[in-house]
Amino acid sequence: MSAISLDQLRAAVRNIPDFPQSGIQFKDITPVLGDAVLFSALIDHVAAPYRPGDVDVVVGIDARGFILAAATAYRLQAAFAPVRKKGKLPYQTLEQSYDLEYGSNTVAMHADAIRTGQRILLVDDLLATGGTAGASASLIERLGGRIIEAVFFIELAFLNGRSKLQGFPVRTLVAF
Amino acid sequence: MSAISLDQLRAAVRNIPDFPQSGIQFKDITPVLGDAVLFSALIDHVAAPYRPGDVDVVVGIDARGFILAAATAYRLQAAFAPVRKKGKLPYQTLEQSYDLEYGSNTVAMHADAIRTGQRILLVDDLLATGGTAGASASLIERLGGRIIEAVFFIELAFLNGRSKLQGFPVRTLVAF
Repeated sequence: MSAISLDQLRAAVRNIPDFPQSGIQFKDITPVLGDAVLFSALIDHVAAPYRPGDVDVVVGIDARGFILAAATAYRLQAAFAPVRKKGKLPYQTLEQSYDLEYGSNTVAMHADAIRTGQRILLVDDLLATGGTAGASASLIERLGGRIIEAVFFIELAFLNGRSKLQGFPVRTLVAF
Repeated sequence: MSAISLDQLRAAVRNIPDFPQSGIQFKDITPVLGDAVLFSALIDHVAAPYRPGDVDVVVGIDARGFILAAATAYRLQAAFAPVRKKGKLPYQTLEQSYDLEYGSNTVAMHADAIRTGQRILLVDDLLATGGTAGASASLIERLGGRIIEAVFFIELAFLNGRSKLQGFPVRTLVAF
């Protein structure tokens, strides 16, 4: 386990007022990524419950989620599979739409990204409203994957994103 | 060093004709990422010349570049810094534009992503025309970083992307 505490990781997250739009307090994780000791500690905390062999595929969500998920996959000697916005993946895909406050969004995974029964860790930087995470979990299940946990660095608890992940174990490292 | 050869990694790259547009032979790396042994070997090959302590920051280019660069940063106990399209990074940025066949594109890095004199490894999945890589190298130098190498999984040699990285050591793992 890392010598760096979750409180230290939390303290390094930078608050950016009014980004990307007025009224949003954006949580900027680049000061964590940009410090070798903190970045390493973040990945070790994400991976902490597991040892190599426990997880078959780490699924990461475009684009910041790729950073945490890929390093976690390497750490756990697991495979990596991306969730991307519709139209970005070149091979045959499964798609899943979800509602936004105004309109909807569609994410996709490759049809061959997961094999039936594989143990999946879903990793993203942020659990906000949970729309993308919930749609990603649906894709994983449709592909036959078994989600052993959904892990997020940051949870914006007041947005109740966990409601979109009912039935799955959810772990968040720090909350705002 | 990995027991998996570069030829084995090359053989796992999937060719997708006419993606994202007619006439393009897209090189799909997801079969490499999606195999735990190949993914681990890919990162080990990218990081092979270095040991922890040799590299201060691994810079990755949005979005597939994040996957390789973040895992390499974790492997080398280095920091990670992202290059993203203009408007995606929340804090103060430096921007760099480059010409496309029709029009231009602008990438950005955070102004505090790199400190003067830091040793930088630039990592991306693909060296094609080299526009994004060249602009990223310019940003790194403007921030005071010292590029010790630019490493790419795949080189499309006929596009001569190396011409945009003159003066920097360039290494590519496999070429098409």
